Amino acid sequence: MNYRFANRMEGVTGNAIREIFKLLQKPEVISFAGGMPAAESFPVTDIIRITDEVLSQSGSKILQYGDTEGYAPLRDTLVPWLTGKDITATAEDILITSGSQQGIDLTCKAFLNPGDKVLVESPTYLAALQILKTYEADAIPVCTDEEGIDLADLEEKIKKHSPKLLYLIPTFQNPTGKTLPLERRKVVVDLAVQNDIVVIEDDPYRDLRYKGQALPAMKSFDKLGNVVYLASFSKLISPGLRVGCAVAPQEILRKMIIGKQATDVHTSNLSQAIVNQYMKEDRLDPHLIKICADYSVRLNKMNQMLEQYFPSELTFTHPEGGLFIWVMLPEHIDAQQLLQKSIAKNVAFIPGTSFFADGSGKNTMRLNFSNSSEERIETGMKILAQVMKEEMV
Amino acid sequence: MNYRFANRMEGVTGNAIREIFKLLQKPEVISFAGGMPAAESFPVTDIIRITDEVLSQSGSKILQYGDTEGYAPLRDTLVPWLTGKDITATAEDILITSGSQQGIDLTCKAFLNPGDKVLVESPTYLAALQILKTYEADAIPVCTDEEGIDLADLEEKIKKHSPKLLYLIPTFQNPTGKTLPLERRKVVVDLAVQNDIVVIEDDPYRDLRYKGQALPAMKSFDKLGNVVYLASFSKLISPGLRVGCAVAPQEILRKMIIGKQATDVHTSNLSQAIVNQYMKEDRLDPHLIKICADYSVRLNKMNQMLEQYFPSELTFTHPEGGLFIWVMLPEHIDAQQLLQKSIAKNVAFIPGTSFFADGSGKNTMRLNFSNSSEERIETGMKILAQVMKEEMV
Repeated sequence: MNYRFANRMEGVTGNAIREIFKLLQKPEVISFAGGMPAAESFPVTDIIRITDEVLSQSGSKILQYGDTEGYAPLRDTLVPWLTGKDITATAEDILITSGSQQGIDLTCKAFLNPGDKVLVESPTYLAALQILKTYEADAIPVCTDEEGIDLADLEEKIKKHSPKLLYLIPTFQNPTGKTLPLERRKVVVDLAVQNDIVVIEDDPYRDLRYKGQALPAMKSFDKLGNVVYLASFSKLISPGLRVGCAVAPQEILRKMIIGKQATDVHTSNLSQAIVNQYMKEDRLDPHLIKICADYSVRLNKMNQMLEQYFPSELTFTHPEGGLFIWVMLPEHIDAQQLLQKSIAKNVAFIPGTSFFADGSGKNTMRLNFSNSSEERIETGMKILAQVMKEEMV
Repeated sequence: MNYRFANRMEGVTGNAIREIFKLLQKPEVISFAGGMPAAESFPVTDIIRITDEVLSQSGSKILQYGDTEGYAPLRDTLVPWLTGKDITATAEDILITSGSQQGIDLTCKAFLNPGDKVLVESPTYLAALQILKTYEADAIPVCTDEEGIDLADLEEKIKKHSPKLLYLIPTFQNPTGKTLPLERRKVVVDLAVQNDIVVIEDDPYRDLRYKGQALPAMKSFDKLGNVVYLASFSKLISPGLRVGCAVAPQEILRKMIIGKQATDVHTSNLSQAIVNQYMKEDRLDPHLIKICADYSVRLNKMNQMLEQYFPSELTFTHPEGGLFIWVMLPEHIDAQQLLQKSIAKNVAFIPGTSFFADGSGKNTMRLNFSNSSEERIETGMKILAQVMKEEMV
């Protein structure tokens, strides 16, 4: 049988991170790869109790087909939650998605024809790059500095490429951990307005802030319908439930709903009902305080290890939240080769090149600190420092 | 803001059925629309207990990110289940999908470029037509007779259009309830082999058989990798959980996995763990015996009402299972107009035209019997008969 696959599948390989995951099943591997929450942080007991309650009360509704837009009680619950992020939305402005990644996919599905240009931060979330490939769009990298996307380069790339979309993660960016300052957020929205660009504001890490002051979402400056805002409960409650949400102008949201009807009809009602009840019981904020305290200790530990044990030639970011530290090695060091050596010693991370639309960044790496205990961070980082020193001799 | 939407969104309106659903929220409406299982049939008590058990045992695994391919214990459990349908597959041949609709979407994503031709039964599942539109593919209707797809027309359309895919529901078809005979199944697979066509065998109703003998799936005749087989637990356990599966040749499955990575990462682990445990406890077969007994009574009731109260000018199918009866009205009757009148009297159904790729079938309608009690079927069908008689005067 000679399969005639679609053009969109050419050159789309599996997500590098998810392939590395499979190598990490061994319990002895200390993994700074992935972007997983700490498994021990999941509110299992609460979720067991809540599941019993919601199914006892509304089992025949939850187990039945639901609305594509989402479980109505959850959409209502999200309205005040979004207000707390300075985002004004009604329930009708919200689409529940099967993880916020589906929000990226559905926005792209609504807008992109083959050859369309999409601006992305360089580096950016690698699954977003994958999604763009499946729409046969051109991802155009925009330079970033220590505070995030570079406005001069953004303006230049807009003029040069007339992009339809700009995808960015303004807060505790994946993979760098950087946060875009207030003034730049406003300018990005202004540039979008002036150039008829839709901004996908992917914001899954915002509530994982360990120090400093929260900044308003770019969506809060969106007066003319230029911003699709994506939130996720994967990092806040549980990724295994697959619940996120999109807040978008009505005209865009209608297209996204049609796109979602055609792909999975609706998100698991049970997952939605669990997230809804968890939030309605006001359990999310205390849970966040707890996990932020844990993650903060882990971030500090990893930071301290980088300063104390690693060669002084490397530089790294100092995020105030999120899940990642980004490390830049000397130009001649290939992080991919480093990974082979560190995996042989049971320590894993993600080589940074996968996050670059243009395949650059061979000398960069992403370190996740949320999913390892302080002890394992100490052990793993010492091994990694040793591997690195040997590589840099 | 001037939105520049993708070409794929042109002419794609919302799914007609899901739009009608919203009109049916009033409890006084007797709905023969939709394709929902009976809400009172859901095994709520078992699912509450099972959820408690799986989360207590494996909570931190279930709530964490999972594999795109699916929850490994569920993939293992499905192997013998598929053997019971004469389908030989290993766990590696199975992809867990967010409902079997995602299986259609991912197969199309793997294969279709704009303008590609896909053969479909006429009429066919309307969401499949929607999906084809989102891939800008051309759905080519193939004639059907009382036993399903017409082989002569199939061969002619294959010659004329060189289609990449053939989508069909061979058992208790949606919307007609027809079942393709054994010999035709074999010929369809042979034609696919001879013409390098991939067949999507959508099989969500197979286990809802109320009389007669089960037929082997077309997948069981697939020796050369031409068939993607889709099963669903929506009609068997619960649609709200959104769990289905695809069984496909490795080369196709890999593309589908890449497509799924990019859209929802993986299906809700909790939903998958519930379905897995329910099947491992051997609860599915006794549950099917129970719901088949209920649905059989409802099918018979609806059939009896059609024979007793409806004008003799109409004809209808006599399915041995599934969820639907298909009704053909005299040529001059417009089912859409009929719907307006019956909805005014609180009875709903789906006008058949939505199921035709070419927009024909104005004088057809689909009736669902699974989601109404015998009493409501009797009441609703009497009203519908009255409305129809008035229309046919």
